[in-house]
Amino acid sequence: MKIIITSGGTSEPVDNVRKITNRSSGLLGSMIANELVAKNDENLEKIYYISNKNAKKPYKNDKIKEIIAESTEDVYNALENLVPKCDAIIHAMAISDYKVDYVSSSQLLTQRLAGKSKNEIEKLLISNDVKIANNDKISSYNDDLFIRLVPTPKIISKIKEWNKSILLIGFKLLSNVREEKLADVATNLLRKTNCDLIVANDITKITKERHPALIIDKNSNVVKVNTKDYIAKVISQYLLDNSELSPTYKYYSV
Amino acid sequence: MKIIITSGGTSEPVDNVRKITNRSSGLLGSMIANELVAKNDENLEKIYYISNKNAKKPYKNDKIKEIIAESTEDVYNALENLVPKCDAIIHAMAISDYKVDYVSSSQLLTQRLAGKSKNEIEKLLISNDVKIANNDKISSYNDDLFIRLVPTPKIISKIKEWNKSILLIGFKLLSNVREEKLADVATNLLRKTNCDLIVANDITKITKERHPALIIDKNSNVVKVNTKDYIAKVISQYLLDNSELSPTYKYYSV
Repeated sequence: MKIIITSGGTSEPVDNVRKITNRSSGLLGSMIANELVAKNDENLEKIYYISNKNAKKPYKNDKIKEIIAESTEDVYNALENLVPKCDAIIHAMAISDYKVDYVSSSQLLTQRLAGKSKNEIEKLLISNDVKIANNDKISSYNDDLFIRLVPTPKIISKIKEWNKSILLIGFKLLSNVREEKLADVATNLLRKTNCDLIVANDITKITKERHPALIIDKNSNVVKVNTKDYIAKVISQYLLDNSELSPTYKYYSV
Repeated sequence: MKIIITSGGTSEPVDNVRKITNRSSGLLGSMIANELVAKNDENLEKIYYISNKNAKKPYKNDKIKEIIAESTEDVYNALENLVPKCDAIIHAMAISDYKVDYVSSSQLLTQRLAGKSKNEIEKLLISNDVKIANNDKISSYNDDLFIRLVPTPKIISKIKEWNKSILLIGFKLLSNVREEKLADVATNLLRKTNCDLIVANDITKITKERHPALIIDKNSNVVKVNTKDYIAKVISQYLLDNSELSPTYKYYSV
Protein backbone atom coordinates (compact mmCIF):
# COMPACT_ATOMS: atom_id res chain seq x y z
CA MET A 1 0.00 0.00 0.00
CA LYS A 2 1.33 3.42 -1.00
CA ILE A 3 -0.18 6.32 0.91
CA ILE A 4 0.10 10.06 0.32
CA ILE A 5 -0.25 12.45 3.26
CA THR A 6 -0.49 16.18 2.61
CA SER A 7 0.19 18.20 5.75
CA GLY A 8 0.72 21.75 6.99
CA GLY A 9 -0.46 24.69 4.90
CA THR A 10 0.33 26.26 1.57
CA SER A 11 1.32 29.89 1.16
CA GLU A 12 0.87 32.24 -1.75
CA PRO A 13 3.36 35.06 -2.40
CA VAL A 14 2.19 38.71 -2.45
CA ASP A 15 5.66 39.85 -3.50
CA ASN A 16 9.03 38.25 -2.87
CA VAL A 17 8.96 39.03 0.86
CA ARG A 18 5.29 38.93 1.88
CA LYS A 19 2.99 35.96 1.61
CA ILE A 20 -0.55 34.89 2.51
CA THR A 21 -0.63 31.74 4.54
CA ASN A 22 -2.70 30.02 7.24
CA ARG A 23 -2.38 28.69 10.73
CA SER A 24 -1.88 25.01 9.89
CA SER A 25 1.12 23.52 11.69
CA GLY A 26 1.22 20.05 10.14
CA LEU A 27 1.03 18.42 13.56
CA LEU A 28 -2.01 16.27 12.74
CA GLY A 29 -0.51 15.06 9.43
CA SER A 30 2.75 14.14 11.15
CA MET A 31 0.87 12.20 13.83
CA ILE A 32 -1.06 10.25 11.19
CA ALA A 33 2.21 9.33 9.46
CA ASN A 34 3.75 8.25 12.77
CA GLU A 35 0.67 6.20 13.69
CA LEU A 36 0.67 4.43 10.31
CA VAL A 37 4.34 3.52 10.68
CA ALA A 38 3.86 2.44 14.31
CA LYS A 39 1.24 -0.12 13.28
CA ASN A 40 4.13 -1.94 11.62
CA ASP A 41 1.86 -3.35 8.93
CA GLU A 42 3.67 -5.26 6.20
CA ASN A 43 1.14 -3.99 3.66
CA LEU A 44 2.42 -0.45 4.15
CA GLU A 45 5.01 0.07 1.43
CA LYS A 46 5.53 3.83 1.33
CA ILE A 47 4.21 7.11 2.72
CA TYR A 48 4.72 10.22 0.60
CA TYR A 49 4.62 13.11 3.08
CA ILE A 50 3.94 16.35 1.17
CA SER A 51 4.25 19.47 3.34
CA ASN A 52 5.56 23.03 3.44
CA LYS A 53 9.09 23.61 4.70
CA ASN A 54 8.02 24.85 8.12
CA ALA A 55 5.42 22.14 8.75
CA LYS A 56 5.87 19.54 11.47
CA LYS A 57 7.52 16.40 10.06
CA PRO A 58 7.01 12.75 11.10
CA TYR A 59 9.85 10.76 12.67
CA LYS A 60 12.49 9.72 10.15
CA ASN A 61 11.71 6.29 8.73
CA ASP A 62 12.67 4.39 5.60
CA LYS A 63 9.01 4.08 4.68
CA ILE A 64 8.48 7.84 4.65
CA LYS A 65 9.53 10.04 1.73
CA GLU A 66 9.29 13.77 2.41
CA ILE A 67 8.31 16.15 -0.38
CA ILE A 68 8.33 19.93 0.10
CA ALA A 69 5.57 22.02 -1.49
CA GLU A 70 4.93 25.68 -0.65
CA SER A 71 2.21 26.97 -2.98
CA THR A 72 -1.06 25.42 -4.11
CA GLU A 73 0.54 24.95 -7.51
CA ASP A 74 3.44 23.00 -5.97
CA VAL A 75 0.99 20.64 -4.24
CA TYR A 76 -1.09 20.31 -7.42
CA ASN A 77 1.97 19.33 -9.45
CA ALA A 78 3.23 16.84 -6.88
CA LEU A 79 -0.19 15.17 -6.61
CA GLU A 80 -0.84 15.05 -10.33
CA ASN A 81 2.27 12.93 -10.53
CA LEU A 82 1.79 10.77 -7.40
CA VAL A 83 -1.95 10.17 -7.16
CA PRO A 84 -2.09 7.76 -10.16
CA LYS A 85 0.60 5.60 -8.48
CA CYS A 86 -0.86 5.42 -4.98
CA ASP A 87 -3.60 3.55 -3.12
CA ALA A 88 -4.76 6.16 -0.63
CA ILE A 89 -4.40 9.86 0.12
CA ILE A 90 -4.93 11.67 3.40
CA HIS A 91 -5.37 15.25 2.25
CA ALA A 92 -4.86 17.10 5.53
CA MET A 93 -2.95 20.11 4.20
CA ALA A 94 -4.71 23.47 4.41
CA ILE A 95 -4.63 24.52 0.77
CA SER A 96 -4.92 28.24 -0.02
CA ASP A 97 -8.30 28.80 -1.66
CA TYR A 98 -6.99 31.99 -3.22
CA LYS A 99 -3.77 33.23 -4.77
CA VAL A 100 -2.64 36.79 -5.44
CA ASP A 101 -3.60 38.18 -8.85
CA TYR A 102 -2.30 41.73 -8.45
CA VAL A 103 -1.76 44.61 -6.06
CA SER A 104 -3.45 47.99 -6.47
CA SER A 105 -4.19 51.02 -4.25
CA SER A 106 -7.10 53.35 -3.40
CA GLN A 107 -5.39 56.09 -5.39
CA LEU A 108 -5.10 53.96 -8.51
CA LEU A 109 -8.62 52.53 -8.18
CA THR A 110 -10.11 56.02 -7.67
CA GLN A 111 -8.30 57.38 -10.73
CA ARG A 112 -9.24 54.51 -12.99
CA LEU A 113 -12.82 53.83 -11.88
CA ALA A 114 -14.26 57.35 -11.51
CA GLY A 115 -17.34 57.89 -13.68
CA LYS A 116 -17.26 54.36 -15.12
CA SER A 117 -20.25 52.09 -15.64
CA LYS A 118 -20.69 48.65 -14.06
CA ASN A 119 -19.52 46.94 -17.24
CA GLU A 120 -16.46 49.13 -17.53
CA ILE A 121 -15.55 48.59 -13.86
CA GLU A 122 -15.91 44.82 -14.23
CA LYS A 123 -13.46 44.89 -17.12
CA LEU A 124 -11.04 47.31 -15.46
CA LEU A 125 -10.81 45.19 -12.30
CA ILE A 126 -9.41 42.31 -14.31
CA SER A 127 -7.13 44.47 -16.48
CA ASN A 128 -3.55 45.70 -16.14
CA ASP A 129 -4.77 49.28 -15.74
CA VAL A 130 -5.32 49.05 -11.99
CA LYS A 131 -2.12 47.19 -11.11
CA ILE A 132 0.85 48.62 -9.30
CA ALA A 133 3.72 47.50 -11.52
CA ASN A 134 5.88 45.43 -9.22
CA ASN A 135 7.11 41.88 -9.11
CA ASP A 136 9.62 42.51 -6.36
CA LYS A 137 9.05 43.93 -2.90
CA ILE A 138 6.19 46.42 -2.72
CA SER A 139 7.18 49.71 -1.08
CA SER A 140 6.28 50.24 2.59
CA TYR A 141 5.16 53.79 1.85
CA ASN A 142 1.81 53.45 0.08
CA ASP A 143 -1.21 55.00 1.82
CA ASP A 144 -2.96 51.70 1.35
CA LEU A 145 -2.91 48.59 -0.85
CA PHE A 146 -5.61 46.48 -2.45
CA ILE A 147 -4.65 42.87 -3.07
CA ARG A 148 -6.84 41.04 -5.56
CA LEU A 149 -7.13 37.33 -4.84
CA VAL A 150 -8.46 34.78 -7.30
CA PRO A 151 -9.42 31.15 -6.61
CA THR A 152 -6.86 28.37 -6.91
CA PRO A 153 -7.87 25.04 -8.50
CA LYS A 154 -9.78 22.81 -6.04
CA ILE A 155 -7.20 20.04 -5.71
CA ILE A 156 -9.52 17.76 -3.76
CA SER A 157 -11.92 17.66 -6.73
CA LYS A 158 -9.10 16.51 -9.02
CA ILE A 159 -7.95 13.50 -7.04
CA LYS A 160 -10.56 10.97 -8.18
CA GLU A 161 -10.17 12.28 -11.74
CA TRP A 162 -6.48 11.40 -11.60
CA ASN A 163 -7.13 7.99 -10.03
CA LYS A 164 -10.69 6.81 -9.62
CA SER A 165 -9.80 3.88 -7.38
CA ILE A 166 -7.65 5.79 -4.88
CA LEU A 167 -9.02 5.96 -1.34
CA LEU A 168 -9.53 9.65 -0.54
CA ILE A 169 -9.64 11.06 2.97
CA GLY A 170 -10.50 14.75 2.97
CA PHE A 171 -10.61 17.44 5.64
CA LYS A 172 -12.99 20.35 6.06
CA LEU A 173 -12.24 23.22 8.44
CA LEU A 174 -15.04 25.59 9.33
CA SER A 175 -15.18 28.38 11.86
CA ASN A 176 -17.62 28.72 14.72
CA VAL A 177 -20.48 26.50 13.50
CA ARG A 178 -22.85 24.07 15.27
CA GLU A 179 -22.12 20.37 14.99
CA GLU A 180 -25.12 19.76 12.68
CA LYS A 181 -23.92 22.45 10.28
CA LEU A 182 -20.39 21.01 10.34
CA ALA A 183 -21.73 17.51 9.53
CA ASP A 184 -23.90 18.93 6.74
CA VAL A 185 -21.16 20.92 5.03
CA ALA A 186 -18.71 18.01 5.34
CA THR A 187 -21.19 15.49 3.93
CA ASN A 188 -21.88 17.76 0.97
CA LEU A 189 -18.16 18.14 0.31
CA LEU A 190 -17.69 14.36 0.62
CA ARG A 191 -20.31 13.78 -2.11
CA LYS A 192 -19.05 16.60 -4.34
CA THR A 193 -15.43 15.48 -4.22
CA ASN A 194 -16.05 11.72 -4.03
CA CYS A 195 -14.23 11.41 -0.72
CA ASP A 196 -14.35 8.04 0.98
CA LEU A 197 -13.96 9.60 4.40
CA ILE A 198 -14.02 13.18 5.58
CA VAL A 199 -12.74 14.75 8.78
CA ALA A 200 -14.75 17.83 9.71
CA ASN A 201 -13.48 20.26 12.32
CA ASP A 202 -14.03 23.76 13.65
CA ILE A 203 -11.05 26.06 14.17
CA THR A 204 -12.66 27.85 17.12
CA LYS A 205 -12.88 24.54 19.03
CA ILE A 206 -9.25 23.45 18.52
CA THR A 207 -6.86 24.02 21.42
CA LYS A 208 -3.47 22.62 22.30
CA GLU A 209 -5.04 19.67 24.11
CA ARG A 210 -8.29 19.15 22.24
CA HIS A 211 -9.15 18.69 18.58
CA PRO A 212 -12.85 17.79 18.27
CA ALA A 213 -13.77 16.32 14.89
CA LEU A 214 -16.49 14.41 13.11
CA ILE A 215 -15.23 11.60 10.90
CA ILE A 216 -17.85 10.74 8.30
CA ASP A 217 -17.89 8.01 5.67
CA LYS A 218 -19.81 7.62 2.39
CA ASN A 219 -22.67 5.85 4.16
CA SER A 220 -23.02 8.72 6.62
CA ASN A 221 -21.60 6.76 9.52
CA VAL A 222 -20.22 9.32 11.92
CA VAL A 223 -17.50 8.91 14.52
CA LYS A 224 -16.92 11.72 16.96
CA VAL A 225 -13.42 12.16 18.37
CA ASN A 226 -11.86 14.73 20.60
CA THR A 227 -8.10 14.75 20.06
CA LYS A 228 -5.55 14.67 17.21
CA ASP A 229 -4.36 11.37 18.61
CA TYR A 230 -7.75 9.72 18.05
CA ILE A 231 -8.13 11.26 14.60
CA ALA A 232 -4.79 9.65 13.68
CA LYS A 233 -5.86 6.31 15.20
CA VAL A 234 -9.23 6.17 13.43
CA ILE A 235 -7.71 7.06 10.06
CA SER A 236 -4.84 4.56 10.36
CA GLN A 237 -7.14 1.75 11.40
CA TYR A 238 -9.58 2.61 8.61
CA LEU A 239 -6.79 2.52 6.02
CA LEU A 240 -4.83 -0.50 7.14
CA ASP A 241 -7.64 -2.70 8.46
CA ASN A 242 -10.77 -2.75 6.46
CA SER A 243 -11.61 0.59 4.86
CA GLU A 244 -14.85 0.89 6.70
CA LEU A 245 -15.88 2.99 9.60
CA SER A 246 -17.47 0.22 11.66
CA PRO A 247 -19.44 0.64 14.88
CA THR A 248 -16.38 -0.58 16.79
CA TYR A 249 -15.01 2.87 16.24
CA LYS A 250 -17.55 4.12 18.74
CA TYR A 251 -14.72 3.32 21.11
CA TYR A 252 -13.27 6.62 20.07
CA SER A 253 -16.43 8.66 20.48
CA VAL A 254 -16.79 11.23 23.24
CA MET B 1 23.48 46.21 29.97
CA LYS B 2 19.93 45.23 29.04
CA ILE B 3 19.45 44.43 25.35
CA ILE B 4 16.27 43.87 23.35
CA ILE B 5 16.40 41.67 20.25
CA THR B 6 13.37 41.50 17.98
CA SER B 7 13.53 38.52 15.64
CA GLY B 8 11.49 36.57 13.08
CA GLY B 9 8.50 38.21 11.41
CA THR B 10 5.09 39.51 12.40
CA SER B 11 1.86 38.31 10.82
CA GLU B 12 -1.45 40.07 10.34
CA PRO B 13 -4.73 38.13 10.27
CA VAL B 14 -7.02 38.25 7.22
CA ASP B 15 -9.66 36.18 9.00
CA ASN B 16 -9.27 33.63 11.76
CA VAL B 17 -7.56 31.08 9.50
CA ARG B 18 -5.64 33.12 6.92
CA LYS B 19 -2.85 35.57 7.63
CA ILE B 20 -0.35 37.77 5.80
CA THR B 21 3.19 37.14 6.89
CA ASN B 22 6.73 37.20 5.53
CA ARG B 23 9.68 34.93 4.99
CA SER B 24 11.71 35.87 8.07
CA SER B 25 12.85 32.81 10.02
CA GLY B 26 14.42 34.48 13.06
CA LEU B 27 17.71 32.68 12.45
CA LEU B 28 19.83 35.86 12.38
CA GLY B 29 18.24 37.23 15.58
CA SER B 30 18.83 33.92 17.37
CA MET B 31 22.48 33.91 16.26
CA ILE B 32 22.99 37.45 17.56
CA ALA B 33 21.52 36.43 20.94
CA ASN B 34 23.77 33.35 21.07
CA GLU B 35 26.84 35.38 20.11
CA LEU B 36 26.14 38.00 22.80
CA VAL B 37 25.78 35.28 25.46
CA ALA B 38 28.89 33.45 24.21
CA LYS B 39 31.03 36.54 24.75
CA ASN B 40 30.39 35.95 28.45
CA ASP B 41 30.60 39.66 29.20
CA GLU B 42 29.78 40.58 32.81
CA ASN B 43 28.18 43.81 31.58
CA LEU B 44 25.46 41.83 29.84
CA GLU B 45 22.59 41.67 32.34
CA LYS B 46 19.61 40.57 30.24
CA ILE B 47 18.49 39.91 26.67
CA TYR B 48 14.77 40.31 25.94
CA TYR B 49 14.17 38.15 22.86
CA ILE B 50 10.90 39.23 21.21
CA SER B 51 9.79 36.92 18.38
CA ASN B 52 6.81 35.17 16.82
CA LYS B 53 5.94 31.68 18.01
CA ASN B 54 7.43 29.92 14.98
CA ALA B 55 10.67 31.94 14.88
CA LYS B 56 14.03 30.35 15.61
CA LYS B 57 14.93 30.75 19.29
CA PRO B 58 18.39 31.19 20.89
CA TYR B 59 19.81 28.51 23.19
CA LYS B 60 18.19 28.50 26.63
CA ASN B 61 20.11 30.71 29.01
CA ASP B 62 19.32 32.49 32.28
CA LYS B 63 20.24 35.80 30.68
CA ILE B 64 17.64 35.42 27.91
CA LYS B 65 13.97 36.13 28.46
CA GLU B 66 11.73 35.09 25.57
CA ILE B 67 8.65 37.15 24.71
CA ILE B 68 6.17 36.02 22.03
CA ALA B 69 4.62 38.62 19.71
CA GLU B 70 2.65 37.78 16.57
CA SER B 71 1.23 41.02 15.16
CA THR B 72 2.81 44.43 14.70
CA GLU B 73 0.58 45.64 17.53
CA ASP B 74 1.96 42.93 19.85
CA VAL B 75 5.53 44.05 19.10
CA TYR B 76 4.58 47.70 19.50
CA ASN B 77 3.07 47.06 22.93
CA ALA B 78 6.00 44.96 24.14
CA LEU B 79 8.54 47.58 23.02
CA GLU B 80 6.61 50.56 24.40
CA ASN B 81 7.00 48.88 27.76
CA LEU B 82 10.60 47.60 27.45
CA VAL B 83 12.45 50.26 25.44
CA PRO B 84 12.46 52.85 28.28
CA LYS B 85 14.14 50.27 30.59
CA CYS B 86 16.86 49.03 28.21
CA ASP B 87 20.23 50.16 26.92
CA ALA B 88 20.19 48.80 23.37
CA ILE B 89 17.83 47.28 20.85
CA ILE B 90 18.62 45.11 17.85
CA HIS B 91 15.47 45.44 15.80
CA ALA B 92 15.90 42.52 13.39
CA MET B 93 12.25 41.41 13.20
CA ALA B 94 10.52 41.84 9.85
CA ILE B 95 7.56 43.98 10.89
CA SER B 96 4.45 43.94 8.66
CA ASP B 97 4.21 47.35 7.02
CA TYR B 98 0.51 46.79 6.43
CA LYS B 99 -2.40 45.23 8.27
CA VAL B 100 -5.78 44.12 6.93
CA ASP B 101 -8.50 46.77 7.00
CA TYR B 102 -11.29 44.83 5.28
CA VAL B 103 -12.14 42.28 2.61
CA SER B 104 -14.28 43.08 -0.44
CA SER B 105 -14.91 41.55 -3.88
CA SER B 106 -15.12 42.63 -7.54
CA GLN B 107 -18.86 42.13 -7.39
CA LEU B 108 -19.30 44.40 -4.39
CA LEU B 109 -16.87 47.03 -5.72
CA THR B 110 -18.61 47.06 -9.12
CA GLN B 111 -22.03 47.48 -7.51
CA ARG B 112 -20.99 50.24 -5.17
CA LEU B 113 -18.62 52.25 -7.36
CA ALA B 114 -20.46 52.33 -10.72
CA GLY B 115 -21.13 55.87 -11.90
CA LYS B 116 -19.45 57.48 -8.89
CA SER B 117 -17.10 60.47 -8.97
CA LYS B 118 -13.52 60.47 -7.69
CA ASN B 119 -14.56 62.04 -4.41
CA GLU B 120 -17.35 59.57 -3.89
CA ILE B 121 -15.08 56.60 -4.68
CA GLU B 122 -12.43 57.87 -2.25
CA LYS B 123 -15.04 57.99 0.51
CA LEU B 124 -16.61 54.64 -0.40
CA LEU B 125 -13.25 52.84 -0.33
CA ILE B 126 -12.83 53.71 3.33
CA SER B 127 -16.47 53.06 4.28
CA ASN B 128 -18.37 49.98 5.46
CA ASP B 129 -20.33 49.87 2.20
CA VAL B 130 -17.71 47.86 0.30
CA LYS B 131 -16.92 45.33 3.02
CA ILE B 132 -17.87 41.68 3.05
CA ALA B 133 -19.35 41.30 6.51
CA ASN B 134 -17.20 38.62 8.08
CA ASN B 135 -14.98 38.34 11.10
CA ASP B 136 -14.63 34.59 10.91
CA LYS B 137 -13.38 32.44 8.03
CA ILE B 138 -14.11 33.92 4.61
CA SER B 139 -15.85 31.45 2.27
CA SER B 140 -13.74 29.60 -0.30
CA TYR B 141 -16.37 30.16 -2.96
CA ASN B 142 -16.06 33.84 -3.91
CA ASP B 143 -15.13 34.60 -7.53
CA ASP B 144 -12.42 36.85 -6.19
CA LEU B 145 -11.52 38.88 -3.10
CA PHE B 146 -10.04 42.32 -2.58
CA ILE B 147 -8.11 42.78 0.64
CA ARG B 148 -7.53 46.40 1.67
CA LEU B 149 -4.31 46.87 3.60
CA VAL B 150 -3.47 49.98 5.60
CA PRO B 151 -0.08 50.95 7.07
CA THR B 152 0.91 49.87 10.57
CA PRO B 153 2.76 52.34 12.82
CA LYS B 154 6.48 52.55 11.99
CA ILE B 155 7.85 51.05 15.19
CA ILE B 156 11.46 51.88 14.37
CA SER B 157 10.57 55.61 14.34
CA LYS B 158 9.10 55.34 17.83
CA ILE B 159 12.09 53.81 19.59
CA LYS B 160 14.13 56.97 20.17
CA GLU B 161 10.92 58.77 21.18
CA TRP B 162 10.43 56.20 23.92
CA ASN B 163 14.08 56.35 25.04
CA LYS B 164 16.37 58.88 23.44
CA SER B 165 19.55 57.37 24.87
CA ILE B 166 18.91 53.77 23.80
CA LEU B 167 21.36 52.37 21.24
CA LEU B 168 19.31 51.45 18.17
CA ILE B 169 20.39 48.91 15.58
CA GLY B 170 18.00 48.77 12.65
CA PHE B 171 17.64 46.51 9.62
CA LYS B 172 16.58 47.35 6.11
CA LEU B 173 15.63 44.65 3.61
CA LEU B 174 15.37 45.58 -0.04
CA SER B 175 14.89 43.41 -3.11
CA ASN B 176 17.18 43.21 -6.11
CA VAL B 177 19.03 46.52 -5.86
CA ARG B 178 22.63 47.57 -6.52
CA GLU B 179 24.93 48.00 -3.55
CA GLU B 180 25.01 51.81 -3.93
CA LYS B 181 21.22 51.99 -3.85
CA LEU B 182 21.12 49.70 -0.81
CA ALA B 183 23.64 51.92 1.02
CA ASP B 184 21.67 55.05 0.07
CA VAL B 185 18.29 53.79 1.23
CA ALA B 186 19.77 52.44 4.46
CA THR B 187 21.63 55.67 5.22
CA ASN B 188 18.43 57.66 4.71
CA LEU B 189 16.50 55.34 7.01
CA LEU B 190 19.29 55.57 9.61
CA ARG B 191 18.98 59.38 9.64
CA LYS B 192 15.17 59.39 9.61
CA THR B 193 14.84 56.94 12.48
CA ASN B 194 17.93 58.02 14.46
CA CYS B 195 19.49 54.58 14.25
CA ASP B 196 23.03 54.23 15.59
CA LEU B 197 23.77 51.38 13.24
CA ILE B 198 21.88 49.89 10.36
CA VAL B 199 22.20 46.52 8.64
CA ALA B 200 21.17 46.71 4.98
CA ASN B 201 20.51 43.56 2.99
CA ASP B 202 18.94 42.35 -0.22
CA ILE B 203 16.56 39.39 -0.14
CA THR B 204 17.55 38.23 -3.63
CA LYS B 205 21.18 37.78 -2.46
CA ILE B 206 20.43 35.74 0.66
CA THR B 207 20.94 31.97 0.44
CA LYS B 208 21.33 29.24 3.02
CA GLU B 209 25.10 29.78 3.14
CA ARG B 210 25.47 33.47 2.37
CA HIS B 211 23.91 36.61 3.80
CA PRO B 212 25.64 39.66 2.29
CA ALA B 213 25.01 42.88 4.21
CA LEU B 214 26.27 46.40 4.60
CA ILE B 215 26.59 47.56 8.20
CA ILE B 216 26.57 51.35 8.35
CA ASP B 217 27.01 53.68 11.31
CA LYS B 218 25.99 57.31 11.90
CA ASN B 219 29.30 58.57 10.49
CA SER B 220 28.77 56.60 7.29
CA ASN B 221 31.44 54.06 8.09
CA VAL B 222 30.55 50.93 6.18
CA VAL B 223 31.48 47.33 6.89
CA LYS B 224 30.67 44.72 4.33
CA VAL B 225 29.99 41.17 5.54
CA ASN B 226 28.92 38.02 3.81
CA THR B 227 27.31 35.68 6.34
CA LYS B 228 24.83 35.76 9.23
CA ASP B 229 27.66 34.67 11.46
CA TYR B 230 29.69 37.80 10.73
CA ILE B 231 26.64 40.05 11.06
CA ALA B 232 26.16 38.59 14.54
CA LYS B 233 29.85 39.05 15.39
CA VAL B 234 30.03 42.68 14.24
CA ILE B 235 26.86 43.64 16.12
CA SER B 236 27.91 41.88 19.34
CA GLN B 237 31.36 43.43 19.31
CA TYR B 238 29.88 46.85 18.54
CA LEU B 239 27.48 46.58 21.47
CA LEU B 240 29.71 45.05 24.12
CA ASP B 241 33.02 46.63 23.24
CA ASN B 242 32.94 50.22 22.27
CA SER B 243 29.85 51.19 20.30
CA GLU B 244 31.82 52.23 17.32
CA LEU B 245 32.36 50.63 13.99
CA SER B 246 36.13 50.96 13.87
CA PRO B 247 38.38 50.20 10.91
CA THR B 248 39.44 46.98 12.63
CA TYR B 249 36.13 45.59 11.49
CA LYS B 250 37.52 45.52 7.99
CA TYR B 251 38.57 42.07 9.12
CA TYR B 252 35.04 41.07 8.35
CA SER B 253 34.83 42.55 4.90
CA VAL B 254 34.62 40.43 1.77
